[in-house]
Amino acid sequence: MTEEVPAGNAFDLATAVHRGRDGWAAAIDPGWGIGDRPNGGYLLALVARAALQAVEHPHPLAVSAHFLSPPAPGPVELAVARLRAGRSLSAARVTLAQHGQARLEALVTAGRLDPDAGPAWAAPGGPPELAPVEACLPGRPDGLEGVRVGLFDHVDVRVDPGTAGWARGRPSGRLEMRGWVRFHDGRPPDPLALLQAADALPPASFGLGLDGWAPTVELTVLVRDLPAPGWLACAVRGRLWRGGWFDEEAEVWDARGRLVAQARQLAGARPRRA
Amino acid sequence: MTEEVPAGNAFDLATAVHRGRDGWAAAIDPGWGIGDRPNGGYLLALVARAALQAVEHPHPLAVSAHFLSPPAPGPVELAVARLRAGRSLSAARVTLAQHGQARLEALVTAGRLDPDAGPAWAAPGGPPELAPVEACLPGRPDGLEGVRVGLFDHVDVRVDPGTAGWARGRPSGRLEMRGWVRFHDGRPPDPLALLQAADALPPASFGLGLDGWAPTVELTVLVRDLPAPGWLACAVRGRLWRGGWFDEEAEVWDARGRLVAQARQLAGARPRRA
Repeated sequence: MTEEVPAGNAFDLATAVHRGRDGWAAAIDPGWGIGDRPNGGYLLALVARAALQAVEHPHPLAVSAHFLSPPAPGPVELAVARLRAGRSLSAARVTLAQHGQARLEALVTAGRLDPDAGPAWAAPGGPPELAPVEACLPGRPDGLEGVRVGLFDHVDVRVDPGTAGWARGRPSGRLEMRGWVRFHDGRPPDPLALLQAADALPPASFGLGLDGWAPTVELTVLVRDLPAPGWLACAVRGRLWRGGWFDEEAEVWDARGRLVAQARQLAGARPRRA
Repeated sequence: MTEEVPAGNAFDLATAVHRGRDGWAAAIDPGWGIGDRPNGGYLLALVARAALQAVEHPHPLAVSAHFLSPPAPGPVELAVARLRAGRSLSAARVTLAQHGQARLEALVTAGRLDPDAGPAWAAPGGPPELAPVEACLPGRPDGLEGVRVGLFDHVDVRVDPGTAGWARGRPSGRLEMRGWVRFHDGRPPDPLALLQAADALPPASFGLGLDGWAPTVELTVLVRDLPAPGWLACAVRGRLWRGGWFDEEAEVWDARGRLVAQARQLAGARPRRA
């Protein structure tokens, strides 16, 4: 467990994997969630780290996870199966189980991101326009209607005022969330950190006034570039809330103004009962 | 095999699965690809159909596939594992193998789409603006530099002139593709057909003048609604081409003007050698 986390690498410790009896194992840190539910991006980083043990390439390029049932903090087993071992790409499957029951399954395709390659082509329109960090709303660990958001002890989240109206009871009326993200302890971002950052902002459903838990059903992140040190600018929007499900498309941009990750998730949101 | 396909259900026959020796089996139809490479959307529909045999819910809500190596037309084995059996959602994994080697692995979360539910909220901006069907460029099975596109024998694709410049040697300079999609034989769209439609247009990389094969690495489709009969309007755009990889975000809209599917893929594209 990670009760005594040295400064500077809380994320690496909280997502550490080790050899277990059958395959790999890890401990879900109680400090990286919302109430007792681990954050989806945190789980994605953890299973991607396990996948990277089994493949030949250093960087997760595409990570797709289906969330089966929320694991609790504590020990988990990680069954890792190598699926592909190619020259430019390799792939693995990871099943995260607790008490013998699968809680999450993920497919990871890994490759090597060239730090020196620039974009060969990028769509017009750069990073999202965000208010300066100091003008944004900080994510507060004690902030959410009595539910402790331990994630914000570790991930420094600053929500753009333009998408923070829900915090004052005035939701924007849109599936939208924008903000800055970095680790509190100064750990620089890398591809695993991008998996975390892609799911670190409050759920876009808050923008519709749906302030309950938004359980992730499926989350896929594409890592497109090696991020530069510094703040990550995250922009999330969704197109449709229907039948209790909504989508979130996230873009993560680094301090150089480069698109470093893209994500999409399907999540649940229902109005609170009166 | 499907040499003698009765009119009206070519897609259902080409994606049919049956009980095999160990689990499920299918035959990849040689007619649903580009050259001898099966189309990614076709494969996605086939594995989703297999997944639906193992779960309690009728509709694929989220389907994520990692493409390991292209299968050839002919028999394939489908290992289906049930991952979740819940009240509102169930999930399964499908491994498509040929000659004992995994070629594609997919995770499928299924649920029940309510035909009567309207969107509870939809983002501003409706379906893409497309030229009328008769003003669009038809996908031609014999059209691609000597490579037969059998897919277009079955899927009626009409590319909007605004994104068809590549066909006249004048690519748009953008990762973008828009067009109409339906089955030639009149089979109405359903959730499985949406998985096909989400990957039926020519690759967006053609817009950058990259006219070679664009192998899909990862493809995830979210099915958001039950589609109405008629043409599907598809709009695809990508944000970044870097290090030989590009992204494609697809939206599929039905004849009522409802968003029925969203997809994203990571695919490969390199300039031809001179």
